Amino acid sequence: MYIVIMAGGSGTRFWPASRESLPKQFLNIIGDKPMVLETFERIQSLVPDDRILLVVGERHRAETGRLFKNHAVRILAEPKGRNTAPCIGLAAKYIEHLGGCEPIIILPADHYIARPEIFRTGLLQAAQIASGGGIVTLGIVPTRPETGYGYIERAEKPEEGSVYPVKRFVEKPSLETAGDYLQSGNYYWNAGIFVATPQALLAEFASHMPAFSQGLEQLGATFDKAEFPNALQTLYDDTEGISFDYAIMEKTSRPVYVIPSECGWSDVGSWRSLYEVRMERDQDDFGNVADGDTLLVDCRDSFLVSRGKRFLAALGLRNILVVDTEDALLVADLTKSQEVKKIIDRLKKSNSMDIL
Amino acid sequence: MYIVIMAGGSGTRFWPASRESLPKQFLNIIGDKPMVLETFERIQSLVPDDRILLVVGERHRAETGRLFKNHAVRILAEPKGRNTAPCIGLAAKYIEHLGGCEPIIILPADHYIARPEIFRTGLLQAAQIASGGGIVTLGIVPTRPETGYGYIERAEKPEEGSVYPVKRFVEKPSLETAGDYLQSGNYYWNAGIFVATPQALLAEFASHMPAFSQGLEQLGATFDKAEFPNALQTLYDDTEGISFDYAIMEKTSRPVYVIPSECGWSDVGSWRSLYEVRMERDQDDFGNVADGDTLLVDCRDSFLVSRGKRFLAALGLRNILVVDTEDALLVADLTKSQEVKKIIDRLKKSNSMDIL
Repeated sequence: MYIVIMAGGSGTRFWPASRESLPKQFLNIIGDKPMVLETFERIQSLVPDDRILLVVGERHRAETGRLFKNHAVRILAEPKGRNTAPCIGLAAKYIEHLGGCEPIIILPADHYIARPEIFRTGLLQAAQIASGGGIVTLGIVPTRPETGYGYIERAEKPEEGSVYPVKRFVEKPSLETAGDYLQSGNYYWNAGIFVATPQALLAEFASHMPAFSQGLEQLGATFDKAEFPNALQTLYDDTEGISFDYAIMEKTSRPVYVIPSECGWSDVGSWRSLYEVRMERDQDDFGNVADGDTLLVDCRDSFLVSRGKRFLAALGLRNILVVDTEDALLVADLTKSQEVKKIIDRLKKSNSMDIL
Repeated sequence: MYIVIMAGGSGTRFWPASRESLPKQFLNIIGDKPMVLETFERIQSLVPDDRILLVVGERHRAETGRLFKNHAVRILAEPKGRNTAPCIGLAAKYIEHLGGCEPIIILPADHYIARPEIFRTGLLQAAQIASGGGIVTLGIVPTRPETGYGYIERAEKPEEGSVYPVKRFVEKPSLETAGDYLQSGNYYWNAGIFVATPQALLAEFASHMPAFSQGLEQLGATFDKAEFPNALQTLYDDTEGISFDYAIMEKTSRPVYVIPSECGWSDVGSWRSLYEVRMERDQDDFGNVADGDTLLVDCRDSFLVSRGKRFLAALGLRNILVVDTEDALLVADLTKSQEVKKIIDRLKKSNSMDIL
């Protein structure tokens, strides 16, 4: 069995803590370690280190090497971000090249799991099922009518035990629809966690992304050779960015299963979402979470992050987010923190690249 | 005629922009110059520079010298802050020593005047009246039922023109009482601006602060001599801090007059108060005032001050104050900004003197 940790994403949803050069998975925003390292440690007990493959962006290869210098993990660097489908195809091809034929567990590097033991149990069960040739996903049991995630609808009857055939993948719903999903009990959050053998995955790419699949075949002959970087660059240049969900999961005719999991998952997709995760263990008596050299007076439900060396005093705040770094400071309505991309857009327009 | 600018106050109401070592009057918080310099320039046309006396704290003597290096003003340094009564006594004695017998205009260094021409007209009129031996104040025509200021009640009938005998000085009222004052039309805000001859002032000190007055007499023999600093130190050590209003104005039997002024005065006593002053000329279309390298998205009625070198992004804020300096950052509910002293108190308790 292999585990692939997809750490190639970029993103500025945690600006100003995250930057284009320092995306979320390389930040220590939940605990005191970068998320990619926490993701690794969460599943480290399942396989030997050399069966763990990290796929990262080229610009983070060196940093990843430093982070994992005491672990014999494998690292592949993508020349550019092309979303999850090419990443998973590349990983499957590489693991096939290594001789793997058992299921691969594919995980995003930047999610939070409150109950890792339940998470691992689900993954092992998924691997067991996936060895039969299907594609298995973990379905996160929803706890609220969330409109920010895709959903997985299961069939009424389980295949066996708590393994259900998947009826369909659905995109982000309206609030009303999300409420219906929550009530029905047949819908799960799609956490982007997939388990399948490399052969099953490569067959899917051959069916649904034939040009990319041919490119992968040619690339396969160059692994461990000097021409590999150029071949990979060519393949990525010729491939459009597309998600695995959209390219494969919504189209496959292969058996697809979902295993419900109550592992306390969060995609930690915004400051607000991070605040909710942090609340569970770090909130004070008034619902505040504060990091760094901070002093709070009469504040409630606020999230104060001092990552620089500055002293941060907060007075009378309600639902306010403050993120202070060495060169940039964000103060926002915490409930609007996902709109930080508006700031990024304005900064891009004004060519303020130095703080992006 | 002489003008005394009282710049000896300390205070941290504008923390973190103001510090114990850098009080408000030495800050450029309204325009691009320190308030003491703006106060000076406002009245500079009334008298020659050498008839302007700055009374500052000992620790600001050097800084004051630098600020006024191109002006032949006189500077007296108080060894410690003792409120306004000793400051005015010292200034009156010193000006008597210089041979002055015409009225002295006494002004705080850290107030804002929107309409300086009207202000100067009032001062000149006050000086004319004060040459008769009384004490004259400017009374600021109130524009709201303010509970943060003391008030001056005038007599019904004017002494002459728009000069009214003062009935009494009253301390900060309740909101209801302030509303009554506003309606009656007989009450003015006490801006701490007094005009009187040095002889009238010194006679008042002799009557109502006799011990201090005797000390002043002894000090008078040391002006321009080597023993002056020690003598002044001794006098201030032996004198308790007390306001001129309380020590003299509420007790005097001398004729006291008030001249109503609509000069657009503000004591700029809090961030909120400064925001209101700044609004008049610097607000954007959504009631925000922003200084420094700032980017506002969907913000309203907020006051954002970036005094350091950091970029400040604000998202979705309502009524929020942000003050960013090199080593400390304040984020507060703008309507509660006068409570910044709670932060100061907590910092003092925790011995965080380096950021006070």
